[in-house]
Amino acid sequence: MAVKKTRKDQADQTKGTRLNRSQRGKQIALIRKRQITTAAYEIIAEKGYYNFTMMDIAKRAGVSSGLIHHYFKDKENMLVTLLREMQQSVRINTEKAIEDVSGPKEKLEVFMDSAFALVETQREYIHVTYDFLTQIKFNERMQRIMSKLYRGYRQTMVEILRDGKAKGVFKDVDEHYTASLFVSIMLGIELQYVIDNTAFFYRDYTYKIKAYIFDLVVKK
Amino acid sequence: MAVKKTRKDQADQTKGTRLNRSQRGKQIALIRKRQITTAAYEIIAEKGYYNFTMMDIAKRAGVSSGLIHHYFKDKENMLVTLLREMQQSVRINTEKAIEDVSGPKEKLEVFMDSAFALVETQREYIHVTYDFLTQIKFNERMQRIMSKLYRGYRQTMVEILRDGKAKGVFKDVDEHYTASLFVSIMLGIELQYVIDNTAFFYRDYTYKIKAYIFDLVVKK
Repeated sequence: MAVKKTRKDQADQTKGTRLNRSQRGKQIALIRKRQITTAAYEIIAEKGYYNFTMMDIAKRAGVSSGLIHHYFKDKENMLVTLLREMQQSVRINTEKAIEDVSGPKEKLEVFMDSAFALVETQREYIHVTYDFLTQIKFNERMQRIMSKLYRGYRQTMVEILRDGKAKGVFKDVDEHYTASLFVSIMLGIELQYVIDNTAFFYRDYTYKIKAYIFDLVVKK
Repeated sequence: MAVKKTRKDQADQTKGTRLNRSQRGKQIALIRKRQITTAAYEIIAEKGYYNFTMMDIAKRAGVSSGLIHHYFKDKENMLVTLLREMQQSVRINTEKAIEDVSGPKEKLEVFMDSAFALVETQREYIHVTYDFLTQIKFNERMQRIMSKLYRGYRQTMVEILRDGKAKGVFKDVDEHYTASLFVSIMLGIELQYVIDNTAFFYRDYTYKIKAYIFDLVVKK
């Protein structure tokens, strides 16, 4: 799960460095906030965005609801933090996967693979993202964070394409259009497949789409 | 707006034919139900799926909440009817647009145009559709109706492609894959643009996408 961290992981974050009292206070606040947003993510994934209470989250996080209010001004504040964390987490995973390989072609392949894999490895994440989608019309902060998510995808692909063009490996394609096209395909195929996993053979289709993008972009 | 009908239009449906008492009763029930779901659509578009009451709908429709319960067993029942109506309405519009032209190339073009136009002409419809999307995980009926919507899009395009191949105008493309690819692009570009209308030049990009699909499908 994208945003899930065990409490042990979180505790480990404070080890290994000597901190003064104020630094340690900030560190603990970060950990507590993360603990609460992790619980919120789990609860929303189980019950849906519109069917949970702050008490559900307090219980799951093993804290008092007073403590939640100590760290988050209100429910919206907590949800905005959760949405940001979810996106950072997915972003970091993608960036890390790309860094691990060298060469524009390899990076493009890993980027596409990790985008298409979301629907199989992060189903909960996708549902929770759709839940947040219903907020964009009414909540400008949520709208901005959501638009940052898709802009992030486009931007990552633009950078890969730019790098490949500079290195003479990719054709002179319109980077922004090609990135937007791929992100469109990825989001749209994900949407159809999440709603109906008998719609098509997901792996076959994504394989064909990858081949098409490669054909479009890579110099022969 | 897709599902909106004026009361005059609705009243017109009963004119022109002589009906017996039972037929006329059914007709009135249909009109009342449509009146209520139209009000529901407007209210949801304004307030969001999770922020309305049955009383809001009764007030907007100008009926008592008792009458709503007379026609719909419960809230879910009314929402399912609304979702079905929304989809039929969009489907009928698309089918009608395609029927109005002859020739597979013209039909393909009209189909793509009407799909891409949704984001500009039916913004409310798209938001309400996203609202329903949050239900698919928890409500099997909603999941089935939603999957029917996207299957409908794919199916319409499959038929156009099949017809064009039979008439020797289109290449021997994989119909189902090509339809799924186009629907993916359409849904994904719509999603990015609804969230952030500064993401790209929507008309330029959809124009390029149409040219690409034509290139993929039409024999030179």
